[in-house]
Amino acid sequence: MAKNNQKMVAEITSMNEDFAKWYTDIVKKAELIDYTSVKGCMVIRPYGYAIWERIQRILDDMFKELGHENVCMPMFIPESLLNKEKDHVEGFAPEVAWVTHGGSEKLEERLCIRPTSETLFCEHYANIIHSYRDLPKLYNQWVSVVRWEKTTRPFLRSREFLWQEGHTIHETAEEAVNETEQMLNCYAEFCEKYLAMPVVKGMKTESDKFAGAVSTYAIEALMHDGKALQAATSHYFGDGFAKAFDIQYTNRENKLCYPHQTSWGATTRLIGAIIMTHGDDNGLVLPPAVAPIQVVVVPVAQHKEGVSDKANELYNKLKESGLRVSIDDSDNSPGWKFSQAEMKGIPLRVEIGPKDIENSSCVVVTRHNREKTVVSLDEICEVAKQKLIEVRDGMYEKALKNRENKTYSCKTLEEITSALEEKGDGFVKAMWCGDEECEDKVKEVTGVGSRCIPFEQEQISDVCVCCGKPAKKMVLWAKAY
Amino acid sequence: MAKNNQKMVAEITSMNEDFAKWYTDIVKKAELIDYTSVKGCMVIRPYGYAIWERIQRILDDMFKELGHENVCMPMFIPESLLNKEKDHVEGFAPEVAWVTHGGSEKLEERLCIRPTSETLFCEHYANIIHSYRDLPKLYNQWVSVVRWEKTTRPFLRSREFLWQEGHTIHETAEEAVNETEQMLNCYAEFCEKYLAMPVVKGMKTESDKFAGAVSTYAIEALMHDGKALQAATSHYFGDGFAKAFDIQYTNRENKLCYPHQTSWGATTRLIGAIIMTHGDDNGLVLPPAVAPIQVVVVPVAQHKEGVSDKANELYNKLKESGLRVSIDDSDNSPGWKFSQAEMKGIPLRVEIGPKDIENSSCVVVTRHNREKTVVSLDEICEVAKQKLIEVRDGMYEKALKNRENKTYSCKTLEEITSALEEKGDGFVKAMWCGDEECEDKVKEVTGVGSRCIPFEQEQISDVCVCCGKPAKKMVLWAKAY
Repeated sequence: MAKNNQKMVAEITSMNEDFAKWYTDIVKKAELIDYTSVKGCMVIRPYGYAIWERIQRILDDMFKELGHENVCMPMFIPESLLNKEKDHVEGFAPEVAWVTHGGSEKLEERLCIRPTSETLFCEHYANIIHSYRDLPKLYNQWVSVVRWEKTTRPFLRSREFLWQEGHTIHETAEEAVNETEQMLNCYAEFCEKYLAMPVVKGMKTESDKFAGAVSTYAIEALMHDGKALQAATSHYFGDGFAKAFDIQYTNRENKLCYPHQTSWGATTRLIGAIIMTHGDDNGLVLPPAVAPIQVVVVPVAQHKEGVSDKANELYNKLKESGLRVSIDDSDNSPGWKFSQAEMKGIPLRVEIGPKDIENSSCVVVTRHNREKTVVSLDEICEVAKQKLIEVRDGMYEKALKNRENKTYSCKTLEEITSALEEKGDGFVKAMWCGDEECEDKVKEVTGVGSRCIPFEQEQISDVCVCCGKPAKKMVLWAKAY
Repeated sequence: MAKNNQKMVAEITSMNEDFAKWYTDIVKKAELIDYTSVKGCMVIRPYGYAIWERIQRILDDMFKELGHENVCMPMFIPESLLNKEKDHVEGFAPEVAWVTHGGSEKLEERLCIRPTSETLFCEHYANIIHSYRDLPKLYNQWVSVVRWEKTTRPFLRSREFLWQEGHTIHETAEEAVNETEQMLNCYAEFCEKYLAMPVVKGMKTESDKFAGAVSTYAIEALMHDGKALQAATSHYFGDGFAKAFDIQYTNRENKLCYPHQTSWGATTRLIGAIIMTHGDDNGLVLPPAVAPIQVVVVPVAQHKEGVSDKANELYNKLKESGLRVSIDDSDNSPGWKFSQAEMKGIPLRVEIGPKDIENSSCVVVTRHNREKTVVSLDEICEVAKQKLIEVRDGMYEKALKNRENKTYSCKTLEEITSALEEKGDGFVKAMWCGDEECEDKVKEVTGVGSRCIPFEQEQISDVCVCCGKPAKKMVLWAKAY
């Protein structure tokens, strides 16, 4: 039985053998999701949803600390409302789901299910904003949105996904730009501090902007396989939406003006990013801040007298200290339990058996590097808390080192091609003249597309990697999810 | 200016003049909702959504304490999946919204937007449940659902509404029945303790059951206008869904069995119930546990030296003590500020002016009964906390007394008619033979329908109020939202 179970746990594909299969194995075996008969949609199971709840709680607290308030808009957008902003509808209309019937009656006007909610927020703002006294409005909502994708993958791209969308409206362009930057920094801080995931902050090129935005900012993370993942975005809209939706306010000089808007979002994709940044061939590796279970207590030789009691005592002690703890006192073998705890990515495993009890100690094993420490039972709570801080730091360093090893500065297209061939996929830093033709050609020739124009610039060379004309900016290029 | 504003605040219709208009005025003027161009759907504004967030947090903690876990199912249900359980589809198909197109392509199979998610949970359970070791599953989700209602009213009946839906699956019928009862008790405790709203627990009659349920339990509250509002429901399904969806497990005797299921839900309707249980002609009256702001500090004569500083000091002190506090230091008159705080239903108002400061005191006014107390500044935090407990108790007593005054025990249809005519709408307690014909006739003749068969029975008479045959149960009858 134990043997069979061990085999079950170890059944995941190795990352190097087939990265996509490794990913799918983890989302299934760690019980994050289940497939459904609804094509392109998934069930987020308790263990996966608990990660999202942690992400929500932390981000929501950060947003509120910055003065944002939560609201809830309808999930439907009438076709005529979606059509009001030209760029926006062109960007989204091809991929929306349409509701045409309510009960047995055909609707007079089709409703799309929100792919994003700028249009609904604008309609509401037009109702409630009249004077500069009504500004700013700093709103956010936690909902699901629908985009009719052709190919889908759990967490990374699905027809329905969970997210938050912030929508703010301000007196001045400057205020709105500040908000856009502030929220990008907020996301970056969240990813680095709580997800132990290093990110590059930057601006999207013109061709990669959000439909209707003046400028789009993004944070980009590098996955184990050398592909980039956009972890969150933040958009500055100028007054384009305000004009399209006729949102005007009386300013301090008693003149009618258009306000300036932003939006910003992060999604359940972050769970995919966690998997592909930290996971290994034994399964998930979860950052302590979002791990549903931070510590699992595993009794060893639990049939022996006193072991089970002592393990439960330890479990209660850790729980009372405020940690998220579980105990695996099932009939399975310790080996199976260890594998299971690794598959689930629990940051700390605490083993306790007859010999440990004799010495009034236990063994603490960190998931991300399998380091073992013997710890006195008297000190376990303090040590566990300290270890969790070290785990976050260790995970971050490991991910950062991985990114550094896979970041290549290149001066020519040939350098890009050979770097990718020799060292594998990764981030390419190369100069760009600002011309969309060159942007397209880099992708065509080398396979990597522009991810962002990093805020932190380096002067890799004086000329565009593609055309040789004077360079304007350093761009970060990569294949991407 | 101040005068104009005061007029604005006072502009709501009196409850006795037009109850429906009074209700609509409050949801608008207290800034709970805004209307949209999406017919039958609403924007829940920050103040309204903050109430829902408080409700969510408290209920979610209660559910988790009882061992439930959150998940997330897709918002779509393929038509063939919805059709699997006969009673269920008959109940819901007439009122679902249908998605027929994704982008520009017509879907092969229509998808409805979930009106409730039994079918999706069942599909998932069939995937993951194989052995008694996999049972029970105690799942819940916080989502929105869609029902294509003809006539809608904010919070009470809208085409999209927010709710939680618990779905559990158990080895035995007994366990499932216990769960159904436990969750009804959980809702009742929540309403009474946190919303200060007395409820009657009972079972729905056959004709009023949830589509697909063996039995439906509900809690019923009485609104100011004497109409009943169903505040939450809990359903026992037996093994009907399990059979329809082929969910089987190997039991402890190694035999294949069908498990037993439940579901239970509460919605944003609870906000409507709060308004109509506690509100008055000055606006909302919020129970302290779910009030976004529990205390508002209002400086009086704030232009005078020291007032503004002292008011802010008081605000900070209250905030640091853990209360949800705001300060109204706007340029409006104290009268306007008082009216505004009353409209928003803030449980406690703390006034502080030059004379109070001289005496090192302030004036605390409770919203629900306008009682004024002079409180020493040194003791304000302790007193405010004590007052909030008293406010909850006072609100509960007031609502209970209102319900008692409007509850009539009747032995004949004539007694029902004359009680309602003389004393106004309310709860009617009357005996019933169990026959659906009598149930229908009571409604036809008197206008009140069966709300539930209360768990707490009384022997009003020995015979049915309608036909005079031996009575089986006492039923609670009322007009209803």
